[in-house]
Amino acid sequence: MPVFLDATSPDFEQSFTALLNAKREDSPDVDATVADIIADVRKRGDAAVIELTNKFDRVSLTPDTLRITDAEIETACTQVSAEDRAALELAAERIRAYHARQLPKDEQWTDESGATLGWRWGAVSAAGLYVPGGLASYPSSVLMNAIPAKVAGVGRLAMVVPAPDNVLNPLVLLAARLSGVDEVYRIGGAQAVAALAYGTDTIAPVDKITGPGNAFVAAAKRRVFGKVGIDMIAGPSEILVVADADNDADWIALDLLSQAEHDESAQSILITTDAAFGRSVAEAVEKRLETLERAHIAGPSWRDFGAVITVPDLATAAALTDRIAPEHLELCVADPHALSDQINHAGAIFLGQWTPEAIGDYVGGPNHVLPTARSARFSSGLSVLDFMKRTTLSHMSPQALRAIGPAAERLASSESLEAHGLSVTARLRKLND
Amino acid sequence: MPVFLDATSPDFEQSFTALLNAKREDSPDVDATVADIIADVRKRGDAAVIELTNKFDRVSLTPDTLRITDAEIETACTQVSAEDRAALELAAERIRAYHARQLPKDEQWTDESGATLGWRWGAVSAAGLYVPGGLASYPSSVLMNAIPAKVAGVGRLAMVVPAPDNVLNPLVLLAARLSGVDEVYRIGGAQAVAALAYGTDTIAPVDKITGPGNAFVAAAKRRVFGKVGIDMIAGPSEILVVADADNDADWIALDLLSQAEHDESAQSILITTDAAFGRSVAEAVEKRLETLERAHIAGPSWRDFGAVITVPDLATAAALTDRIAPEHLELCVADPHALSDQINHAGAIFLGQWTPEAIGDYVGGPNHVLPTARSARFSSGLSVLDFMKRTTLSHMSPQALRAIGPAAERLASSESLEAHGLSVTARLRKLND
Repeated sequence: MPVFLDATSPDFEQSFTALLNAKREDSPDVDATVADIIADVRKRGDAAVIELTNKFDRVSLTPDTLRITDAEIETACTQVSAEDRAALELAAERIRAYHARQLPKDEQWTDESGATLGWRWGAVSAAGLYVPGGLASYPSSVLMNAIPAKVAGVGRLAMVVPAPDNVLNPLVLLAARLSGVDEVYRIGGAQAVAALAYGTDTIAPVDKITGPGNAFVAAAKRRVFGKVGIDMIAGPSEILVVADADNDADWIALDLLSQAEHDESAQSILITTDAAFGRSVAEAVEKRLETLERAHIAGPSWRDFGAVITVPDLATAAALTDRIAPEHLELCVADPHALSDQINHAGAIFLGQWTPEAIGDYVGGPNHVLPTARSARFSSGLSVLDFMKRTTLSHMSPQALRAIGPAAERLASSESLEAHGLSVTARLRKLND
Repeated sequence: MPVFLDATSPDFEQSFTALLNAKREDSPDVDATVADIIADVRKRGDAAVIELTNKFDRVSLTPDTLRITDAEIETACTQVSAEDRAALELAAERIRAYHARQLPKDEQWTDESGATLGWRWGAVSAAGLYVPGGLASYPSSVLMNAIPAKVAGVGRLAMVVPAPDNVLNPLVLLAARLSGVDEVYRIGGAQAVAALAYGTDTIAPVDKITGPGNAFVAAAKRRVFGKVGIDMIAGPSEILVVADADNDADWIALDLLSQAEHDESAQSILITTDAAFGRSVAEAVEKRLETLERAHIAGPSWRDFGAVITVPDLATAAALTDRIAPEHLELCVADPHALSDQINHAGAIFLGQWTPEAIGDYVGGPNHVLPTARSARFSSGLSVLDFMKRTTLSHMSPQALRAIGPAAERLASSESLEAHGLSVTARLRKLND
């Protein structure tokens, strides 16, 4: 059973805090193993990558077969049905259109002192995309990571995807092709992350690595951070639905289950202004769990971490939402825009009853890589900006230096940084000659 | 002696690679100590913070004196000279004007399917700013961290600054006041970072922590990352100057020394098209080191990590610059804008001989918190965006769901995520009734 909370009950604060702080995931500590793997790849390069991959994935790679050839990708793509291909193409097109709007603008201006200031954005030269193998090998994740990189202007995008027992998902390769991925390697785990970060004879190093993975991949990304950039380390998925009584309980139940079915550690929460509706949704969830293919995953998630919270009004719903800072937020109320305006912290908001969260996972356009574990308080979903960086620009005219240089001299002196001050003084002296 | 390299010599590639990979900093491994400190603060709150601070800083704080009162700040501010205050005010005003231009725009549009999409930006609710005590207690760093936070719209900005032996820099407190810092606490070290991240009875927790610090502070920031956001972990400072022979060797020497004087691990590199000019600069550096107050720091930095590289042309200079991806880049050449356009990776560019890097440290306007250790390949200097996060917005009309829903159903099915598909199917069924 999920927990049922009532925001007006005297012990609510205590129960809600417990819900917020519940530890949902026990990541195994694989850091020492991962450190060894990275050191091995740095030392032995391809040989280490191949040895580890052959062992973990039960395959027989050689340096010549590390990379998946264009011909292999072509062949795999022909195995995809026309319907699946059309769906993937629609998704790619919509994701590209959304992310193209995120491209930031360069700026430059001259201020009243005569200083010309500004910044410009540039793309990361090379990026690496980790794609899990096996069950969690999602073509949608390839689109969501690769398209922003290519829209940003990343010149070289290398993807790694393990092929345990030589099985590869043709849809993943088609997604890579539709996204413009430049190179694909059939490797995975910490060794693949190390190869992307440090390079081997076969794989040139990249500057930024994104994409989801298991505990080994997460630990490897943490370890190579600094040498390369990484995206966030994602935790288990979450959804918060705020719904009034004027909804179909079954729809809301399915929305909650669409996160719960990802992972036993996923969390689905309903906040409703109507306690009876909350009970109906919980009943609808149980009913759906009777037949759902992934009930063995969604059931434990819902029972261990699910919650139904009754609130007296939508203002309370907004306040609780900010404390949860959900990854996905669905607003199924009469005026979802008004409620949205009251909320500060959420990764993605889905407005109204015709916008199930699953639309956002695939074809809506916005990115589905979103901040989990309350990190929407301080971070954002993946975007074009994650594959770009900004260089600031300053140009002083002689008169600008004359105008603001003395203040710099003064501050350098107050910080006892003499050479800083002298670098200005020497120039001002020339100007005042 | 710094190294002298010639880009046309046969062994250049090897020497340049060695220069790029030189390890300049041996951070002590304080992670275990820091883990204990954080655990202690989480358990005992203020008591732990006070105990540790009293020990490390040789002070006698109580819960009542943890926070620096407004009256104390006022009194400290009166100790600042009118000239210092004017310089700090000019710096604050220019930094604010520059960063105000970084405020991102919200977007919303309706596409041809009938889907309304967009995003909006919001500020982090509460941020914490770490300011080192003692010698490295720089008022300019307070401005550079606090002003972007306040421009972003951060509601509550809490600053921590240790006061070893009860000594506090009045300029730091004035900078805090000019920047709009809301709370100041006289604590430092890993215990201050832990207090900001987890909160104590006296200090409410924040969502994001920025600011420089020693190895303990850096390790603590790494450890609390995830619970809160952090800025980058900065390494020792770096400058690369690209200069032709038409420059004053002494000016360039001072620019190189203005980074070298920060830290024995700092790195100053000159790339020049004229070998004789390179030698003149090296001589000017030695001459300045004879009298420079911080020669005991700048000297070892220059001798151990400094470099003078001669190149045959500016195109080579641009290519080498991209490989160095310097934190600070000064372009002292006839057409600095043309050269700048050839360069992809740098934290901040200073164009022309009238723009010494020190201007950017204080009064230029752009931020002086910049990516070090080649991380300008994938990351940017501190900005307003570091204190904001983006929420994506999606709203489907019934016709939009009818248009794109089937593709989502198809992809959900291909990923074996049944509830995802059903959440769309249930709604489409209603629409098609």
